[in-house]
Amino acid sequence: MLQYKNFKFIDGGVCAAAGFTAAGINARIKPNSTKNDMALIYCDTKCTAAALYTQNKVQGAPITVTKQHLSDHTAQAVIVNSGNANTCNPNGIEIAQQACELTAKALNIPADDVIVASTGVIGQKLSIAPFEQNIPTLAKTLSSTGNNEACTAIMTTDTRQKQFAVEFQLDGKTCHIGGMSKGSGMINPNMATMLAFITTDVKISAAMLDKALREVNAVTYNMVSVDGDTSTNDMVTLLSSGHAENPEITAETDFYAIFKDALYAVMMNLARETARDGEGATKLMECTVKNAHDYPTAKTVAKSVINSALLKAAIFAADANWGRILCAIGYAEASFDIAKVSVELSSKAGAVTVCENGSGVDFSEDFAYKILSEDEIVITINLNEGSSTATAWGCDLTYDYVKINAEYRS
Amino acid sequence: MLQYKNFKFIDGGVCAAAGFTAAGINARIKPNSTKNDMALIYCDTKCTAAALYTQNKVQGAPITVTKQHLSDHTAQAVIVNSGNANTCNPNGIEIAQQACELTAKALNIPADDVIVASTGVIGQKLSIAPFEQNIPTLAKTLSSTGNNEACTAIMTTDTRQKQFAVEFQLDGKTCHIGGMSKGSGMINPNMATMLAFITTDVKISAAMLDKALREVNAVTYNMVSVDGDTSTNDMVTLLSSGHAENPEITAETDFYAIFKDALYAVMMNLARETARDGEGATKLMECTVKNAHDYPTAKTVAKSVINSALLKAAIFAADANWGRILCAIGYAEASFDIAKVSVELSSKAGAVTVCENGSGVDFSEDFAYKILSEDEIVITINLNEGSSTATAWGCDLTYDYVKINAEYRS
Repeated sequence: MLQYKNFKFIDGGVCAAAGFTAAGINARIKPNSTKNDMALIYCDTKCTAAALYTQNKVQGAPITVTKQHLSDHTAQAVIVNSGNANTCNPNGIEIAQQACELTAKALNIPADDVIVASTGVIGQKLSIAPFEQNIPTLAKTLSSTGNNEACTAIMTTDTRQKQFAVEFQLDGKTCHIGGMSKGSGMINPNMATMLAFITTDVKISAAMLDKALREVNAVTYNMVSVDGDTSTNDMVTLLSSGHAENPEITAETDFYAIFKDALYAVMMNLARETARDGEGATKLMECTVKNAHDYPTAKTVAKSVINSALLKAAIFAADANWGRILCAIGYAEASFDIAKVSVELSSKAGAVTVCENGSGVDFSEDFAYKILSEDEIVITINLNEGSSTATAWGCDLTYDYVKINAEYRS
Repeated sequence: MLQYKNFKFIDGGVCAAAGFTAAGINARIKPNSTKNDMALIYCDTKCTAAALYTQNKVQGAPITVTKQHLSDHTAQAVIVNSGNANTCNPNGIEIAQQACELTAKALNIPADDVIVASTGVIGQKLSIAPFEQNIPTLAKTLSSTGNNEACTAIMTTDTRQKQFAVEFQLDGKTCHIGGMSKGSGMINPNMATMLAFITTDVKISAAMLDKALREVNAVTYNMVSVDGDTSTNDMVTLLSSGHAENPEITAETDFYAIFKDALYAVMMNLARETARDGEGATKLMECTVKNAHDYPTAKTVAKSVINSALLKAAIFAADANWGRILCAIGYAEASFDIAKVSVELSSKAGAVTVCENGSGVDFSEDFAYKILSEDEIVITINLNEGSSTATAWGCDLTYDYVKINAEYRS
């Protein structure tokens, strides 16, 4: 967990905010599955809701149904399964709608207040049976400590849970934002990403909730890449119960700024953990590009570096092959003077400058190896042209990435 | 070798065209190197020359020097080394110029008629000593069968030679085009690519030579990707001796069309072999997108599919995970109706349709596995919207790609 602006991190994930409960269950979406694969999140009141979705032209059926259900910016429950993406299936929409209806019936709420999401293999038929058999049980087992069971249920090739929550004050009222997400491969979010469910008790208008989600998503999830593949099922949702009873946020006030910072603290950590848990990864790569003449330049260069398969393989081997960094900077589709660029590699073990003015400088290969042998590697690129900064997160490329993806369907 | 329009393929590579000789030598660019790493190509007359270069902002010193030397569209020799890219070195330009001067002196030609190219690790100092010690010997050993020694000398992580030549008639005159290239990783050409040296004896104006190279390059090298990394040293050159004594090609005549087809036969095969020999690759992936409403759409979709790390890993495992193909089609930055798309997988073992109208169709997984177990896999995507076609080439993603790139510098 990376501290941000002194926010107090607490347990509870999606259940940290007042009003929210959750549950998870093994619904055998895949016949041989032994782990939880279906989750329910519920709020005791109708929530204001915002969401972002994948920009892939192929979109899972749950994306289509959720978009319809959120057209009024309200929701009260989330039903989500792993093990099957319900994408490119002839009757996918029908299945997604039925899942919402079953959830609505169990919770006694309208079906169009249910968000539905799926993740897993694309293009395999999904039966409604696991939903019929398990949604009533999920509804009965909802609890304020159900976040762990729910978080496990959304994992696919993820090796660990990803959930964070913060507590903070707004006008003397205690507020919370918490969330969970999944995602390990097919990660190159473009708008929303993977599956992420965020909850809060802050009172905030639908417009400002949407604005905050877009702004924070742009600098968190959208700055993560594991393999450059943008999923068909990416979705991040943000639900607000309003239970904190703060004066409603309806404009870009100081309270909005605090809310946004708290949301950043949660989403940045979820995004970082997604990169760290990239399929087969042994190391988190963080690339910060600074002193760019504008933000898009900084962002494009940072993402180009984080996406380089050659650099990712070198980082796996703790090899300070900085020529691959320069190469990836060089093919980024952005405008800057390569002759001004400097590059530093750092980690808990120290920092070393490997390139100045676009050319190599002498450095100790042994020390660089020590730096790159840590499990969080920071690459700092100084464009020396302006004052804009961007950070992107990725991971190394390993034998296990190939293994996981050569065997995923079987 | 893939036959094209009945062109007669012959041996000889860069020496197939009249006037050209070549040589290769182990110059110990890397101290422990035991293979050829320096090559010389020479023509007995001053040639008309065309070239294309990497679009990476980081460009090797040899690129800068070669651009200067080709400003008059003539050249008579090529000096090239592997083992060191001579890129991001403070004195790189000086070394590249000296290599040209040494070559010029040994051949008694002007230094600005020498093309210089380097490939290998970026950002490591390159000494002039190996050039001083070996260029005189290279000049003395030039021969019309030296293409093999030269072709070996430009290989880095390549596992096999890549050279092709064709013989054809123009106005009753026997003509030749031959070429060699290297490239295995850091392959995502953008303009020119890797190193490729093509020679011909066809009489053709500098303008038409340049035009033919650009047009054919766009549909051959620029349609290859191994890992999405665009190298700093990509260069393809085309030299014409004019010895065939055909009436000079100076416009888009029928003879130009034949010349371009012959050039395509050579460059398409070099490009295909580059993809097949991608680092760690066990399979050639060919993706043809047809019935697109325009060529850019077909091209963008084909390259998106060929670049998907997830699909490449699935192909390695002979897993018909067509959802990953749909996904990569879906995130291609192009405009088309995903609901009209169909996908077919084929190889020597047969063909199977896996997707129609954007949704999965039933197919035999066993038969699909058999198809994907061959070493040349064809993915045919029908957009069902127009009449444009594009083909891109790539390879599977394997444990060995990681291994090669985790260990490349050591």
